[in-house]
Amino acid sequence: MFERPVQRLIDELTRLPGVGRKSAQRLAFHLLNVDEADARCLAQAIVDLREQTAFCSRCYNVTSGVECSICVDPRRDPAVICVVERPQDIAVIERTREFKGRYHVLGGALSPIDGVGPAQLRIEELRSRVPTESITEMIIATNPTIEGDTTAMYLARRFKPLGVTVTRPASGLPVGGDMDYADEITLGRALTGRREI
Amino acid sequence: MFERPVQRLIDELTRLPGVGRKSAQRLAFHLLNVDEADARCLAQAIVDLREQTAFCSRCYNVTSGVECSICVDPRRDPAVICVVERPQDIAVIERTREFKGRYHVLGGALSPIDGVGPAQLRIEELRSRVPTESITEMIIATNPTIEGDTTAMYLARRFKPLGVTVTRPASGLPVGGDMDYADEITLGRALTGRREI
Repeated sequence: MFERPVQRLIDELTRLPGVGRKSAQRLAFHLLNVDEADARCLAQAIVDLREQTAFCSRCYNVTSGVECSICVDPRRDPAVICVVERPQDIAVIERTREFKGRYHVLGGALSPIDGVGPAQLRIEELRSRVPTESITEMIIATNPTIEGDTTAMYLARRFKPLGVTVTRPASGLPVGGDMDYADEITLGRALTGRREI
Repeated sequence: MFERPVQRLIDELTRLPGVGRKSAQRLAFHLLNVDEADARCLAQAIVDLREQTAFCSRCYNVTSGVECSICVDPRRDPAVICVVERPQDIAVIERTREFKGRYHVLGGALSPIDGVGPAQLRIEELRSRVPTESITEMIIATNPTIEGDTTAMYLARRFKPLGVTVTRPASGLPVGGDMDYADEITLGRALTGRREI
């Protein structure tokens, strides 16, 4: 239907998550209409992303160097590790400014149905960091889903025998939320995890 | 918050229509995780789009050559021209297989509030095609919006004195739709345009 270069870009865009055929068409025609320099900027940004970044050799965060800016920061406490599923989760936690330790990116969560077992995650890499960085606490900040909870349980069983305190961020009511809109499971966990004021 | 190459791509993606900060982040991290060849393919497709396409010198459709595949097709009737706002509208009309003439892309619709007057659209280019292609009918398939309707009225006033029949696709109930869901203006036009069966 479209000229070949247009159709090829539409096909490539459709492979992106959350981009359907209609949005891909709209994006392709948008890129036909903008300044050529702007279209080239976008293409170059994609190439640069892959050429100028790598994964941190210690925690597997995204980095422009060998180790990421958090791992090389001497002000960060190496004894406390926050374990996350994906590199983008680090930005979410950093934004809270509540955490001063280092991170470890697992690369996903345990999900037997998708063929993700412990060997598919970076658990051995985490294991080897325990003695070298004298880790005393691990905060398992995987998603509050079945897969994330299962992963947290697995890591607790794995690392408690090594003398590491394993914790999990509290589940409960979102701040500014409305009791009416809380689901039963979240409200149940909020009650179980109640704190004296 | 993110490494520079990641942040730069997020910024570029946010400039696309319908892509917010959150989607841009998701897309950027997706492009970090896919095969490097796939990311490069997308970047190359964007570059090729601009290098290998141009606008048809006759109708301003997208083309890989000088004139588009519709303009050079000898089976298309040159006497009937369908006038559209944007190149992507041509694909929508072609899909109906109801139209056998040629096209003309205006490049938008009249909208004084956005600074789009007749001089900003390709109306003079359309004017010069009337004698050279012996145009007898113009179907004004601009969007059924205020801007599209205004543009259609303007073109009718402009081209009727030249002996061209100017028509507009019917407005009315969508096929397979439900009367309950029709808005008053659409239903009003459907009644005005009623046809004997």
